[in-house]
Amino acid sequence: MNFTIDREVLLEKLNIISHGLPSKSPMKVMEGIKIDVTDNDLFLTASNSDISIEMLVKDSSLVIQERGKTVVPGKTFIDLIKAFDSRKITFFLIEDKMLMIKADRKEYRINIMDPNDYPNIDFVALENPFKINCLDLKKAIEETVFACANTNKNPMLLGVNFKNNANKLTLTATNSYRLSLKTLDVETYDPFEITVPAKSLDELEKILESYEESLPLEIYLAKNKILVKFNDVLFQTRLLDGNFPDTSNVCPKEKDTKVIVRFNKDELQTAVNRIAILSPIDKDREREMTFSAVVLKIDQNYEVELSSANIQGAGKEILIPIDIKAYNPLVIGFSSKYLLEALKVLPGNEIEIAFIDGAKQFVLKSVSDNTLLEIILPFRLEN
Amino acid sequence: MNFTIDREVLLEKLNIISHGLPSKSPMKVMEGIKIDVTDNDLFLTASNSDISIEMLVKDSSLVIQERGKTVVPGKTFIDLIKAFDSRKITFFLIEDKMLMIKADRKEYRINIMDPNDYPNIDFVALENPFKINCLDLKKAIEETVFACANTNKNPMLLGVNFKNNANKLTLTATNSYRLSLKTLDVETYDPFEITVPAKSLDELEKILESYEESLPLEIYLAKNKILVKFNDVLFQTRLLDGNFPDTSNVCPKEKDTKVIVRFNKDELQTAVNRIAILSPIDKDREREMTFSAVVLKIDQNYEVELSSANIQGAGKEILIPIDIKAYNPLVIGFSSKYLLEALKVLPGNEIEIAFIDGAKQFVLKSVSDNTLLEIILPFRLEN
Repeated sequence: MNFTIDREVLLEKLNIISHGLPSKSPMKVMEGIKIDVTDNDLFLTASNSDISIEMLVKDSSLVIQERGKTVVPGKTFIDLIKAFDSRKITFFLIEDKMLMIKADRKEYRINIMDPNDYPNIDFVALENPFKINCLDLKKAIEETVFACANTNKNPMLLGVNFKNNANKLTLTATNSYRLSLKTLDVETYDPFEITVPAKSLDELEKILESYEESLPLEIYLAKNKILVKFNDVLFQTRLLDGNFPDTSNVCPKEKDTKVIVRFNKDELQTAVNRIAILSPIDKDREREMTFSAVVLKIDQNYEVELSSANIQGAGKEILIPIDIKAYNPLVIGFSSKYLLEALKVLPGNEIEIAFIDGAKQFVLKSVSDNTLLEIILPFRLEN
Repeated sequence: MNFTIDREVLLEKLNIISHGLPSKSPMKVMEGIKIDVTDNDLFLTASNSDISIEMLVKDSSLVIQERGKTVVPGKTFIDLIKAFDSRKITFFLIEDKMLMIKADRKEYRINIMDPNDYPNIDFVALENPFKINCLDLKKAIEETVFACANTNKNPMLLGVNFKNNANKLTLTATNSYRLSLKTLDVETYDPFEITVPAKSLDELEKILESYEESLPLEIYLAKNKILVKFNDVLFQTRLLDGNFPDTSNVCPKEKDTKVIVRFNKDELQTAVNRIAILSPIDKDREREMTFSAVVLKIDQNYEVELSSANIQGAGKEILIPIDIKAYNPLVIGFSSKYLLEALKVLPGNEIEIAFIDGAKQFVLKSVSDNTLLEIILPFRLEN
C-alpha cells in the first residue's frame, strides 16, 4: 500500500467514518478503521455493534502507487490526521507491520492490525431503493428521535418506527408518556414498517449535518437491517426486532377536543422554562412523566395560568394566548421537560395546543405546518 | 423589605456573587445569598470555606420602599432572575417567610432562610491598601495559577506565592516539576509574602474577566486573609498557612546555559501537540512530570528533532528554529503537557528556550517580554 492524498479531503471522510467507530470494543480490531486501496480507489470502513459505514474516497488529489489493505487504530489515526498541517500526506506500509505517515519533515509510524481479522461486512444489495431527500430525512429524524425511550423497559421504544404506505412515510417515536409523529410525502414504494435504533439515527443525523446541499438519498431494505446510501457513503444499521406498539388511536379526534389554544411559541417557551425552576424534580425513573411537573389552568374567565411549586417556593404566571377556541375550564399537570422538547422541534412562531376531554393526552402542532404532531400525556393532579 | 430594580443590573451583580457560593454546604444557609437592604443601598453577600464576596448594588433603577434582611437559596434565586424577561422586578417579604418576586404578570415566592443564622463575615479593615491595576493582576494570575499543584502532597503548592519587595511583585506557582514566575512593577509598599489558594484566584480571575476596563484595585492584608476591593466588590479569601518553598535558585544562571533556541511559538505548539498523540500517557500521579513524555534532540549537525513513541507507534519531526545560540548536542525528555501549558501563557510570536548543562531544568520565555519565565524539569531518558 502506498498512496498520497490531500489532508483536508481525507479528514472530511474520516470525520464521517468516525461515527461508525465503537468507543471501546472487546475485539481490538473493531476499534480500527479498515483502509482498502485498490488500483483506482480508496475505501474506508468502520463498524460497531449497530452501525457499519463504508466510504469511497474519490478525489483528484488521490495518487495510488501501490494497492493494499490494512487496519489502523481509529482514534489515534484520526487524531494524527487532524493534527497535521501539511497539504499532502503520503501513506505506505512497512513490512505489513506499520503504516508510515509522511509529510514535509514529519514521519509517523503506527502499528497496524491484520486486515484478515476484520469482519467482512455484509452490506444489503443495492437493489430497489426507497428514495428520499437527505435534508427531509435529517429534519424528520431531528423532529422525532428525541421522543424515544431511554430505558430498556420496552426495547422497541428505543427506536423510531418508519411506516411507508400510500405515498406517505410516517415516523413515530414514543416513550409511552409522549409521542412525536411526523408525516412525509414520498415517491411510490411498496409498503414497509421498520424500527430503527435511536442511536443509529443520532449518528446518521450527525453525518447528514455535514451535507448542506439537498442530496438524493437511497434506502435499501433487508430483513434485519437497512443500508442508507448517499454521496460516497454507505451507512448500514441493524433494525429493532419486534412489533412497534400500535399508536394509531393516540391522536385524538376533533369531536373529543375540549379547548384549542394558540400561543406565541417563544413566549410559551420562556414562561415554561421559568416556571420549571420551581417544579418538583422527580428522580424516580418509573415516574418519568412527572419530571419537572407544572400545572396549566384555564378558568371560567378564560384566564390561562401556568404554575408550579416545590420545597423552595412556588410560581404563577398569567399567559396571554393569541387565541382560544372552545372555552372550557381546564386544569392539567404535565412534564415541563416534555413540553419544552416538543416546542423545540415544532417549526414556526405560533403553536396550537388541543386539549382533550377528560384530561387525556394533548396535542401540539405548529400553526404553519401540519406534518409534525407532538403528543403529551398529562398526569392527574392530586388535589 | 421591599425594593424594585432593573433585572439586568441585578443579574450582573448576581453573576459576580455566584463565584462565592459553595456548590454544596452542610449548613444550608451557606448555600444562600444574603440580601441586605438599607435606607439607600442594597448589599449582596455569598461565602464558602475559602472566599467571601460582598457587593454594594448602587443603581439609579434601585427604588427602596422598605429596608430589611433575608437569605435566599442562591442557585434558585439566580436561575429565576436569569429566566425573567421583564425590565423591572419588585421584591418584598411576606411574613418573613417568603420572598415575593413580582414582574408583569409573574409572581414567584421563594422560601427564605433566617438572616440571623448567616455568619457575620469579618472583612479585613480598609486601611493601608496595596494598589495594583485590575488587568495587570488578572493577567498575572492567568500566567501563573495553572502551574500550581493539584494534589495535597505539599499543601503550600496549592496556591500562588505573592512576594512584594523593592517595588517588585513576584508571583510564583509550582507543582515541583514545573514553575511559573511572573514579575510586576508596583508602587512602593511594605515588603510582604503571602500564598493565595489557586481556587480563590480562579474565581477572582473569572470575576475580573467581566471588567474590561482597567480599574484600580486595592488589596488589604491581614494575618490569614486578604481582602481585594475593586468597583463595588469586596472579595476576601483565606491564605495558605505555612512557608512556600524557596525557589530563588530554580532559575538557572547564564553561565550554566548550554543551548539557547528560538522558535516560532505557533509552529512549536502545533508540533508538540501532534507528537504528543504518540506519547506514552502515564496515569501514575506520582510520576506527574512524565505525562505525555516527548523527546527533544539537538545533534552535532544542529538539527532539532522532536520525537515520541508509545505502544501504538512512534513519531519524529524536524523543527526549524529561528535561531540557535551556543551549539551543543542535547537530548532531553519532558512532559508535552507542561510545555504546551507554558506556551499557552507566554506572550508574543517568538519564544526562547534556554537549556542547562546536565539536563537540569530548562527555561522558556517570550522574546518580547521578560516578565514571565516558565521553567520545566526534564526527566532522565532511560536509553
